[in-house]
Amino acid sequence: MQALGLTGIARAQGVTGATPTAGRGKHVVVLGAGIAGLTAAYELEQAGFLVTLLEARDRVGGRAWTVRDGDKIEMNGEATQTARFSDGIYFNAGPARIPSFHQGLIGYAKKFGVPLEVEINSSRSAYVMGDDGRRIRMRTAVNDMRGHIAELLAKAINQGALDQSITVADRERLMPFLKSYGDLGQDMTFKGTERSGFGTAPGAGVTFAAPGSAMPIDQLLANQQLPMTLFEDNLYMQATMFEPVGGMDQIHAGFDRNLRHPAIRGAVVTRIRHTARGVSVIYRDTASGVEETVAADYMICTIPFPVLAKIDTDFSPRVKKAIAGVVYDHSNKVAFEAPRFWERDQIYGGISFVGGPTSLVWYPSAGLHSERGMLLGCYASGAKAAEFERRPIAEQIAFSRDVIERLHPGHGKDLTNGIAVNWHKVPFSLGPWPDWKAGSANGHQEGHIDTEAFRAFQLADGRVYFAGAALSQTPGWQEGGIQSAQIQVSALLRRVAAQALTEPRARTDRAA
Amino acid sequence: MQALGLTGIARAQGVTGATPTAGRGKHVVVLGAGIAGLTAAYELEQAGFLVTLLEARDRVGGRAWTVRDGDKIEMNGEATQTARFSDGIYFNAGPARIPSFHQGLIGYAKKFGVPLEVEINSSRSAYVMGDDGRRIRMRTAVNDMRGHIAELLAKAINQGALDQSITVADRERLMPFLKSYGDLGQDMTFKGTERSGFGTAPGAGVTFAAPGSAMPIDQLLANQQLPMTLFEDNLYMQATMFEPVGGMDQIHAGFDRNLRHPAIRGAVVTRIRHTARGVSVIYRDTASGVEETVAADYMICTIPFPVLAKIDTDFSPRVKKAIAGVVYDHSNKVAFEAPRFWERDQIYGGISFVGGPTSLVWYPSAGLHSERGMLLGCYASGAKAAEFERRPIAEQIAFSRDVIERLHPGHGKDLTNGIAVNWHKVPFSLGPWPDWKAGSANGHQEGHIDTEAFRAFQLADGRVYFAGAALSQTPGWQEGGIQSAQIQVSALLRRVAAQALTEPRARTDRAA
Repeated sequence: MQALGLTGIARAQGVTGATPTAGRGKHVVVLGAGIAGLTAAYELEQAGFLVTLLEARDRVGGRAWTVRDGDKIEMNGEATQTARFSDGIYFNAGPARIPSFHQGLIGYAKKFGVPLEVEINSSRSAYVMGDDGRRIRMRTAVNDMRGHIAELLAKAINQGALDQSITVADRERLMPFLKSYGDLGQDMTFKGTERSGFGTAPGAGVTFAAPGSAMPIDQLLANQQLPMTLFEDNLYMQATMFEPVGGMDQIHAGFDRNLRHPAIRGAVVTRIRHTARGVSVIYRDTASGVEETVAADYMICTIPFPVLAKIDTDFSPRVKKAIAGVVYDHSNKVAFEAPRFWERDQIYGGISFVGGPTSLVWYPSAGLHSERGMLLGCYASGAKAAEFERRPIAEQIAFSRDVIERLHPGHGKDLTNGIAVNWHKVPFSLGPWPDWKAGSANGHQEGHIDTEAFRAFQLADGRVYFAGAALSQTPGWQEGGIQSAQIQVSALLRRVAAQALTEPRARTDRAA
Repeated sequence: MQALGLTGIARAQGVTGATPTAGRGKHVVVLGAGIAGLTAAYELEQAGFLVTLLEARDRVGGRAWTVRDGDKIEMNGEATQTARFSDGIYFNAGPARIPSFHQGLIGYAKKFGVPLEVEINSSRSAYVMGDDGRRIRMRTAVNDMRGHIAELLAKAINQGALDQSITVADRERLMPFLKSYGDLGQDMTFKGTERSGFGTAPGAGVTFAAPGSAMPIDQLLANQQLPMTLFEDNLYMQATMFEPVGGMDQIHAGFDRNLRHPAIRGAVVTRIRHTARGVSVIYRDTASGVEETVAADYMICTIPFPVLAKIDTDFSPRVKKAIAGVVYDHSNKVAFEAPRFWERDQIYGGISFVGGPTSLVWYPSAGLHSERGMLLGCYASGAKAAEFERRPIAEQIAFSRDVIERLHPGHGKDLTNGIAVNWHKVPFSLGPWPDWKAGSANGHQEGHIDTEAFRAFQLADGRVYFAGAALSQTPGWQEGGIQSAQIQVSALLRRVAAQALTEPRARTDRAA
């Protein structure tokens, strides 16, 4: 199985114990209509629960926010920006791609009839640009570096330097492989490769193709973005990746239209209480200003913790402490509309890596070969994002434009209608995802999320369950939200089943 | 420019000297409505020539043959096969992908309003399968091999084995790069990488991700298809690649509907003669059986040479000898329809490499996430294709099915409606492309096509010009046909312009 690379491919396990009547008509109030809340609401309804889904915003999707022409971008401490896009162009301000092994999310998209298209996550025509502004085409960076590496290793092997490290048999197979690997000459040296592009291109008649010369290794290594040639082999970034046609939020719209009771929008939760027989939620209807109350048997809460920290709740001291202590990360995007000048440079989708506060330029996979498109001029997280977002919005946009001008000389002026999204300032989110490692003590195993607070949220607090990508091992991926929601729905199903042994007569609150 | 990988990116140069009246109403008969003939006909019309385009088949496109439900596959010496496809599924029996730098072909597609979609030419979920049937996922083959290579090179460098080959400065940059390259540990050893897939996948709560262990290098090297992990970096195979929506022949249909005089189909040429004032072509109309004659001023002939060799012509002895001596290659495809079992294995588009007479299994990029699709179970050329096509058709199909069963156990039975195309047997083609290197003498520079015959066709023979991908440096790519056609149209324009200096009064044969 390991050899097949099949072991452990992440797959949402689905909900266990669900039958159409397993919920026994119990009423669950779900807070937040992001991917986790929508998954929970859908699966609960399918399992025979009555669900009230409350969403603070006037849209579903949560961080899966697709910005379209006329949409307002409101951020704490910033003036409102209004997006201007033509021709159905859109901008995924949050998640924008789906790995092929995120079969939970892909499964729901198919179930709800949401078309998916290829998200081209890597193009050999894109660039890595060093701090000095020198650009190297991906094809050249990848293939010339591979040529040098192959040549050096072959030389070391020929010198006998690795006789203790590989068997004679392996060596005899490795040498011809290295020749293919690096496109080396018969003498096992690297003199350049057509993989890196033509020196002269082939044409009709006797217009012969000729490879270019190899870029010297020091020139390659001088480019600080050279390691980003490995980005495409990050497991989460590998072909084949997907995006929903027309915007990421099409999936969330799909969930919502398949709910018996679609999400109640504009419902800002102000108070959560346990009652004698269940839970009670007070929310303010933003349209009317009126306070409403929802009484239910159970709750699944997916509200981001910095937002939750400001809500009046009766959670346990352990949970309240956990909520108060979660630190959220920073993440920024800057988007423009432009005529597709990058396609005239034969860049179709993919990403150029530029470093600095903006990190990358990400080319659209939607609308290939059309006149105009959305160009992403910044997608960065962490400490440098925290610093960048302190700049005025206009400066963030201007900075991103300048970087694109360096990467694509002459085209900075083609960029129109720049907008910036700083997730740490977005109301009802206050960050892209938790930074669970903030302030972590020694012994924290790399890659594992496992803190006191994280564990605290995994179990119900009375009748309240917590769910969200934040409570999975992949806080930045929607699949984590699906996994978390399904786990909690399964836990609730077990609880209801156990209680049924002591309460045989089905309760009939608010018939569905 | 070299650093930018821009030098020499192949681009059809376009036609030189064309204005809407440059053709001065001269009449050109074009033989063959494949990509070269269509390009020639279109550009000639745009330049003010009158064009008669003759095509032997009842369809345009030539080798760009898109097989659909009900289409007949007739091959010399074989019983007719009838294709059966459901749901608009199609099979590109000839060219099936377009590199992003083939801007001539892409340009015509855009000009004629033919939508293009991504052709996923590489998927990390596909496989390399060795002769013993053992499969390795692409992600594992690529990333575990890279890990071993990085570890070995780092070790050699640390031992000082390459002190004479790289500078101290380069070494100091190369070591951290190698750590990224191979996803090595702090100690610069390779212990496995998440890039190759999960050992255990991340989930909700404390379901931690863990990488798998590294596949031993001997196991990787034992897989004869391991070098095919480099296929995606063949310049012609690099992301981002395209295919026309609905079949390759959509482009050729686009050409034909933009001709003032669309191709005359079912016109089988039997005789070519120079006349006192031009050329004369006799063809048999296959529908009526009647012989027709076309008299024109010039000719552009794109008929494949094995077909042309059987036509009664008055070409020069040099040209006749060249025609008679061209040897054509062999190339086979076998296609099935099936439920998309490969997508359940998370393979979306891309290619698995299996070696042997069938070479590969190529997964469709069209109709992703739909129920059924066309699966290509064979695409091989050269000597092994020549041997394979000697098998009965039923055996070719059965063999391909068996290979797919080995690659995807249990799914051989899912394959339906297998059809085989052996290009060497296809009437009016008699081969996929010339093998210009057949019988080549010493001194033939690798990669260059340059034989006596090849050169003979580049110049006009009287009033007859020859064009086709066969006469470019890339006989297997449609872009070569475009380049060749444009070069010959340009030559004809120069000739007409030169003659205009001696014949100032425009001739007015058969007004357009």
